[in-house]
Amino acid sequence: MTMRIAETLTSELVFVKIKAKERVETIDLLLSELHKIRGVDKETALRDLAANGQAATLRVAVGDNYLAVPHAVTQASKQLVMAVATSPAGILWGEGPDELANVVILLLGPPQTHGLYLRVLSRIARFCKTEGFLPSLLDAQSSLDLIGYLESAESSMEEVAEEPDSPRFCVIGAGPGGMAMAGHLALMGRKVNLYTRNADRLAPVQARGGIDVTGEIQGLAKLDVVTTDPEKAVEHSEVLMIVVPATAHRNIAKIIAPYIKDGQIIVLNPGRTGGALEFAQVLQTVNPVVRPYLAEAQTLLYASRLTNPGQVHIYGIKNSVALAALPAYQTADILPIIRTALPQFVPGDNVLKTGLDNIGAVFHPAITLLNSARIENTNGNFQFYLEGVTPAVASILEAIDQERVAVAEALGIRANTAREWLYLAYNAAGKTLIEAMRANPGYRGINAPSTVHHRYISEDVPASLVPIASIGEMLGVRTPAMRSIIHLASVMHGIDYWAIGRTVDKLGIAGMSVKEIRFLVVGAEMKGPEQKAGNQQAIDYTALVGFGKYGFDGGT
Amino acid sequence: MTMRIAETLTSELVFVKIKAKERVETIDLLLSELHKIRGVDKETALRDLAANGQAATLRVAVGDNYLAVPHAVTQASKQLVMAVATSPAGILWGEGPDELANVVILLLGPPQTHGLYLRVLSRIARFCKTEGFLPSLLDAQSSLDLIGYLESAESSMEEVAEEPDSPRFCVIGAGPGGMAMAGHLALMGRKVNLYTRNADRLAPVQARGGIDVTGEIQGLAKLDVVTTDPEKAVEHSEVLMIVVPATAHRNIAKIIAPYIKDGQIIVLNPGRTGGALEFAQVLQTVNPVVRPYLAEAQTLLYASRLTNPGQVHIYGIKNSVALAALPAYQTADILPIIRTALPQFVPGDNVLKTGLDNIGAVFHPAITLLNSARIENTNGNFQFYLEGVTPAVASILEAIDQERVAVAEALGIRANTAREWLYLAYNAAGKTLIEAMRANPGYRGINAPSTVHHRYISEDVPASLVPIASIGEMLGVRTPAMRSIIHLASVMHGIDYWAIGRTVDKLGIAGMSVKEIRFLVVGAEMKGPEQKAGNQQAIDYTALVGFGKYGFDGGT
Repeated sequence: MTMRIAETLTSELVFVKIKAKERVETIDLLLSELHKIRGVDKETALRDLAANGQAATLRVAVGDNYLAVPHAVTQASKQLVMAVATSPAGILWGEGPDELANVVILLLGPPQTHGLYLRVLSRIARFCKTEGFLPSLLDAQSSLDLIGYLESAESSMEEVAEEPDSPRFCVIGAGPGGMAMAGHLALMGRKVNLYTRNADRLAPVQARGGIDVTGEIQGLAKLDVVTTDPEKAVEHSEVLMIVVPATAHRNIAKIIAPYIKDGQIIVLNPGRTGGALEFAQVLQTVNPVVRPYLAEAQTLLYASRLTNPGQVHIYGIKNSVALAALPAYQTADILPIIRTALPQFVPGDNVLKTGLDNIGAVFHPAITLLNSARIENTNGNFQFYLEGVTPAVASILEAIDQERVAVAEALGIRANTAREWLYLAYNAAGKTLIEAMRANPGYRGINAPSTVHHRYISEDVPASLVPIASIGEMLGVRTPAMRSIIHLASVMHGIDYWAIGRTVDKLGIAGMSVKEIRFLVVGAEMKGPEQKAGNQQAIDYTALVGFGKYGFDGGT
Repeated sequence: MTMRIAETLTSELVFVKIKAKERVETIDLLLSELHKIRGVDKETALRDLAANGQAATLRVAVGDNYLAVPHAVTQASKQLVMAVATSPAGILWGEGPDELANVVILLLGPPQTHGLYLRVLSRIARFCKTEGFLPSLLDAQSSLDLIGYLESAESSMEEVAEEPDSPRFCVIGAGPGGMAMAGHLALMGRKVNLYTRNADRLAPVQARGGIDVTGEIQGLAKLDVVTTDPEKAVEHSEVLMIVVPATAHRNIAKIIAPYIKDGQIIVLNPGRTGGALEFAQVLQTVNPVVRPYLAEAQTLLYASRLTNPGQVHIYGIKNSVALAALPAYQTADILPIIRTALPQFVPGDNVLKTGLDNIGAVFHPAITLLNSARIENTNGNFQFYLEGVTPAVASILEAIDQERVAVAEALGIRANTAREWLYLAYNAAGKTLIEAMRANPGYRGINAPSTVHHRYISEDVPASLVPIASIGEMLGVRTPAMRSIIHLASVMHGIDYWAIGRTVDKLGIAGMSVKEIRFLVVGAEMKGPEQKAGNQQAIDYTALVGFGKYGFDGGT
């Protein structure tokens, strides 16, 4: 199905210069008309709007005016519907007397149209960047004027299209994680594309006619498009699952940015710490027009290893992995789409939380380092999480974990401890960290890497420990255990991981206060803008579907 | 043999208020008379005085006057001889016009009297602390006056005594190192006492009638006194070999200090870093009168392990271990005594050099830490220096080693690299550190400790890494690899090793300049005193036989 936004409107559904002064009154006006014209069930719609959290109350500064886009996926409507109201004087939208909205776009759609619905939101986000968009709507003297303006603004854009076989996934990366995810999705009957820059990885998949999946799930997983061409891989996909080392995020962002479409969902699996922030910066630079969704998973869904060319063994699939959008209020919009295939994903609070609930940061570098001689003696022929973790090693892991939780706390985030995470992700319980690790069947059979020159250090140090320690430094939280590991890892690899890692500068948050950082990531929560030196570096989040922008006046 | 100093003098050998204005002239005067009265060979005596380095030219401030004690062990004399000269106006003793000596005591003795000779030097050091000592000598109007003053000053002191069977050793500590040293000395026919606080360690030795030595040397080593009574152990010993963990130095010093005799030689095997400084402070507090010699070895002479109760296996005896006295100019005085039994000891530059040539600091904590899981999995059943050190581990060892060498360099000391040390101590050569380690047969068969709660961390971190890193901090030398190891070790043991370790405060050198520190340890070298805040904490080195004292005007 394809459409243009203006086509969903009729003059009855557009109210210019309304007299209503308050949010509830305005939404009632719009829903009443949608009921009359499109048969929308008002009561159900109101309940689902309320359930959608911030989506109902958020307003965004666009130029000198404010836009509100109350939206919900709801059975109240049989089709995707919109209604618009304008108020040059402003409608009371938030808690305070100054929190006004000048333009209101109400969007509702049934679950079947979820893909389309996301792309319509994305289209609205793109409108926001069009010169004079809100003033033009506010200037409209009649409904038809307004619809005419929308039609002309949209004329230079493609139609909003929903892909067939929705949602269609594109997995980017053909390492153990990417192969597991592509195989898993395909074995569940999903249309899956697989992209990697490395043709050698794809040849055996193409030769076998799919991915040979063994372990927890099994079978030959037939894929749709298997390619080294980023354009082909991305073009008809609704969800782009990035499953590459975090140190490759920047490059992958550069490679796929030109081919991203409005409303596509990009998920970093996982972001490690700060992945979405870094990814957003590249997107904004390379393709400043496009309006995708961007999210990160807290960890990789799979414990898996490549066993033979074209073959992946899945040791375990986690029960529950948090996923958060940037900004956070979009999580509720995109998660249902992803969960149709992968219900293991659950809503994460925000990307700071998913980034700081980074258990790889705690486990991987320290265990590797503290077993380095054994790894080199045995080529990793011992069980990494079981034999590699003894009380002495666990004491270091616990110190790193405490530092991570303390940095999160300084950001106002209650991070899960590693022990809590083992329970949430693997149902592995224990009174101490080491007990919980030993109680985790998912760790059985996972050997150590065959070399210390491995992503457990080369990825987790610069993309996990460095950003956490760097944020800690900025906020005055000491992280001596992390710093010790970072330094020893740098010596061991002969690479200055502080220099190449994701420091607060690279995350675009240097010099920001805790309030400013939270606002950037959460998209709301702050009552008034708080200006501080350095915030000019902040990412412009209208680069994403996120309507928010640093410094805007958030709702509640 | 017992004696009093005054007994060695006759009126011919004492010159009061001499006219001589220069050092050469004065020594010639004294030697001429010694030749006449005692048959000393002048030419040989002059050559051996010159060969004794600083001993011939050093002068020490005692109150407002200066004492010079040119001394040498020499075949020029058949017996221990002394001669004295006084010059209220001062004799030009050093390089500059202000470097005068007011009293000169020339001491010579053949090698057979070396023990006595050291005790006479010690007696002179004790005189220096007697109220009005130099002024009384300078006031003497005649030779007999002066001898009479010495007699009365000495009347309250015991006779200077040389022990029979000299040199007699007391080994303090019955761990692997102490048992090896006591066994080795006894098997070479030396009289050896063995002391430890731990009666359980001694019982099997007493039951067997000696130490059962296996390995590089073999046999039942019969000891003289085996005791837990420090007084009995120490009383007739000329050389006290302290072979305990460096963390026990402070306690051992407190235990033996009351029983130390003038002229006894105390050797810390090894001192780790700063051991002699810390030991001297305790001696000065507990027994401020006594005048022993104090030295430290750069490392333990033996690679050994206790195999059964009363049994020690010696894997290797190093070729060459540096030993340095505090202050450094006494090394030449005491080393010949020690070398009669243990010629492996060679002169070290000074205790900063032996303390910084501390290879245990480089190897022990890092290898233990980086093999901690394996140690706990296997109870240390792998070869510590061979299997425990792979290229990854060696890269960390090299970083720590570079930091150690850099701290030494900041103190004006050219420390041996670990690789150089392996060659010097074990004849183990290699192009890289790991090659040299693998070329060392002394490392074969040495397993890892059975637990990470071992002196490789509990001793080497607080007594080696902490002092080096702390000195580095004071001098502006960065030691991030050491600090990383210190921190991770502290976490692993649940002990704040920075808090309990030998920081510059505990070494009594906080706030001192490089020049001040070097002067303290070397006893000479600086042309003029350099005053700086904090030097009040400096140890008073007249507490040792060292005639030096911080702030005195050293010779060259």
